[in-house]
Amino acid sequence: MLKLYYAPGTCALASHIALEEAGSGYTAERIDFKANQQNSAEYLAINPKGRVPALVTDRGVLTETPAILAFIAQSFPSAKLAPLEDAFGFAQAQAFNSYLCSTVHVAHSHKGRGYRWATEESSFADMKRMVPKTFAACFAMIERDMLRGPWVMGETYSICDPYLFTLTGWLEGNNIDISTLPKVKAHRDRMLERHAVRKVVADEKR
Amino acid sequence: MLKLYYAPGTCALASHIALEEAGSGYTAERIDFKANQQNSAEYLAINPKGRVPALVTDRGVLTETPAILAFIAQSFPSAKLAPLEDAFGFAQAQAFNSYLCSTVHVAHSHKGRGYRWATEESSFADMKRMVPKTFAACFAMIERDMLRGPWVMGETYSICDPYLFTLTGWLEGNNIDISTLPKVKAHRDRMLERHAVRKVVADEKR
Repeated sequence: MLKLYYAPGTCALASHIALEEAGSGYTAERIDFKANQQNSAEYLAINPKGRVPALVTDRGVLTETPAILAFIAQSFPSAKLAPLEDAFGFAQAQAFNSYLCSTVHVAHSHKGRGYRWATEESSFADMKRMVPKTFAACFAMIERDMLRGPWVMGETYSICDPYLFTLTGWLEGNNIDISTLPKVKAHRDRMLERHAVRKVVADEKR
Repeated sequence: MLKLYYAPGTCALASHIALEEAGSGYTAERIDFKANQQNSAEYLAINPKGRVPALVTDRGVLTETPAILAFIAQSFPSAKLAPLEDAFGFAQAQAFNSYLCSTVHVAHSHKGRGYRWATEESSFADMKRMVPKTFAACFAMIERDMLRGPWVMGETYSICDPYLFTLTGWLEGNNIDISTLPKVKAHRDRMLERHAVRKVVADEKR
């Protein structure tokens, strides 16, 4: 059975929701970031990157949200979480998820994880000040050019939706009022009506 | 026919090589970064992100290197550029490429593109100083945990190889001696023996 390592408040939420949507059996194990458990020897043996998510499969461990999401979609085709028979449609979904991981998530990380890229307190403060602007710019592009509605890819729910939902959850903490992004807000509201989303959100809060 | 927009010295090299390896017909059009052509109205109409690569297909434009690479592999299955029939193997390739785009490329970008995440000259200098360390840490992990050899995924050449080759091309500029990374160096040398790689490298230099 698949086993997901996650921590609340992280991008692992996307994979967690996708597993629930897939209707597959899985277990979820929480990593305690406050206790720095992600850097424990035990966890580093599972994921040397010291990050979540990590998905343990019977063939080995997978990391990186876009890869895990596509793996879930391909492993449980009956859940129809990606256009698996259409290389162009699949690439569009992947391009969206790749933008979220390499640009939107990275913009956000400069708020609390500036030490990844700099050493001075003044740099951390500078980065932190800019996050509301850069994160808002990413979401302005998502609102204008990317989110088709009602779901990210249009009429069909896909692996892009839990990932976008995860990152919209960071808007408020970055001082961005979601009501300035009507399509993004409608998407978030729509996600919160789904059984799988409500269940996982509740499970991660426990 | 597929049309790739690229600029020399950028990560578009990975998609350029993959197209050549796929044996598909394609055209490549250079974007002049020195003239800021990536932000021209004409190019923004193609890719609103103002970045390369962008791949124009008969169904629309694709962006984001990992998505373009997987699209090329799926569109030209006879080139065998990814384990298309094996969801786990495909996910491993995708996880590698996702790491390159969201962590390794991002580490590098802090050298010359600090303005994406900060505003002060002191922050840019701080970020720039740290790049040799962060970029080296990424490559230490690639050398130790990821690059199986002779190719990234082991015995079979894949879409991971041109992407790794692209980023190893940035080691020297980040003051990292590739000879300290013997597996990475052997991979780079092996890549430079391939006809497709030599052709694309020469084309981009023209």
